[in-house]
Amino acid sequence: MTTRGLFITFEGGEGVGKSTALEYLQRYLGAAGIPVQVTREPGGTPLGEEIRQVLLSVRDSPVDPLAELLLMFAARSQHLTEKICPSLEQGIWVLCDRFTDASYAYQAGGRQLPMQWVQQLEELVQGDLHPDCTLLLDAPVETGIERARGRGELDRFEREQQAFFQRVRDTYLRLARESSGRYRLVDASQPLESVTSQLEEIGRDLVRCWSEESGT
Amino acid sequence: MTTRGLFITFEGGEGVGKSTALEYLQRYLGAAGIPVQVTREPGGTPLGEEIRQVLLSVRDSPVDPLAELLLMFAARSQHLTEKICPSLEQGIWVLCDRFTDASYAYQAGGRQLPMQWVQQLEELVQGDLHPDCTLLLDAPVETGIERARGRGELDRFEREQQAFFQRVRDTYLRLARESSGRYRLVDASQPLESVTSQLEEIGRDLVRCWSEESGT
Repeated sequence: MTTRGLFITFEGGEGVGKSTALEYLQRYLGAAGIPVQVTREPGGTPLGEEIRQVLLSVRDSPVDPLAELLLMFAARSQHLTEKICPSLEQGIWVLCDRFTDASYAYQAGGRQLPMQWVQQLEELVQGDLHPDCTLLLDAPVETGIERARGRGELDRFEREQQAFFQRVRDTYLRLARESSGRYRLVDASQPLESVTSQLEEIGRDLVRCWSEESGT
Repeated sequence: MTTRGLFITFEGGEGVGKSTALEYLQRYLGAAGIPVQVTREPGGTPLGEEIRQVLLSVRDSPVDPLAELLLMFAARSQHLTEKICPSLEQGIWVLCDRFTDASYAYQAGGRQLPMQWVQQLEELVQGDLHPDCTLLLDAPVETGIERARGRGELDRFEREQQAFFQRVRDTYLRLARESSGRYRLVDASQPLESVTSQLEEIGRDLVRCWSEESGT
């Protein structure tokens, strides 16, 4: 019997270095011989990437926050069925740039929708499936926004105000405190070498956990 | 104080003549001096029409039925906030080509998702808002499919098998029995003149109900 792969998600606000962290961990795990699949939300499947376009487009009329939340979970449902679950069942580790914690942080925290709406959709779409480990890349809001702005054209989310991003960060930090067993907090405001050594430690722990579970 | 407009939905399987019935009632109510807005689902707003494209596109890989259901309700949430509720509050009647009964018929009936999933999303998105009157255009499945095929290129739903459409029809008829106060059943298998006279009767009833409520 194949050991189920681990499901690892990367969370954080704008410009905190999620992609760099994900790539680092992908290489680290790959070097340890672990089969890895990299994906992202919203998106990850052809249908999901179309939904991503709908979500990120800058628009004249405001998007209803509940419509936004439902679009996120529609993409997520397709992502789980078509890609995440089949990969995990084949023993492949899935590294996902954002997942349901982002719906808590952005739609409940940022947009101030009731947390229980997110919970209700989480149960409907995921059932018992939750990430095995979530890396939260954390940095002060200003640092992140500055980095994101340096990347060029801003999407519909990146155009939000500072107060929105502050609520996103506060929500992430609260989730990390409440689910401390699953979360690994990475201080992304530190210089690159420090961030790398934090990620290396996480990678080592994950590989150890994998070796113990698979008995290799 | 403006009397709230009536919310009237048109339901039925493929090729049963929903659009023709809607246009007939639009003219009938317009002639009676009632302000009317015509719209459709999925769609009805710029965001909703983009979601409609995502939903109707013919695809290589199967669409997860729950993702489909969530997309329907995402478009619906935007539709209610941006168009339906503001119109009703201004005293405008809204005539909508398909609404939540279609999610029961297609996603619960056709795709065999649990009815309670649709119920849960209906409550989340609509709260207390329900159509005041629903016209169900009913005809045997074969009649409808034949008419739909005559219209050219088929969308992702129109390509389904006969058994799917039979479940859709059966679900619609069950809903009509269970919510008989809200539903008006139109036998769309009859010749045009008969259908027209059924619609005229419904139009007359609606105008009478409006005159009584608004005291004109």
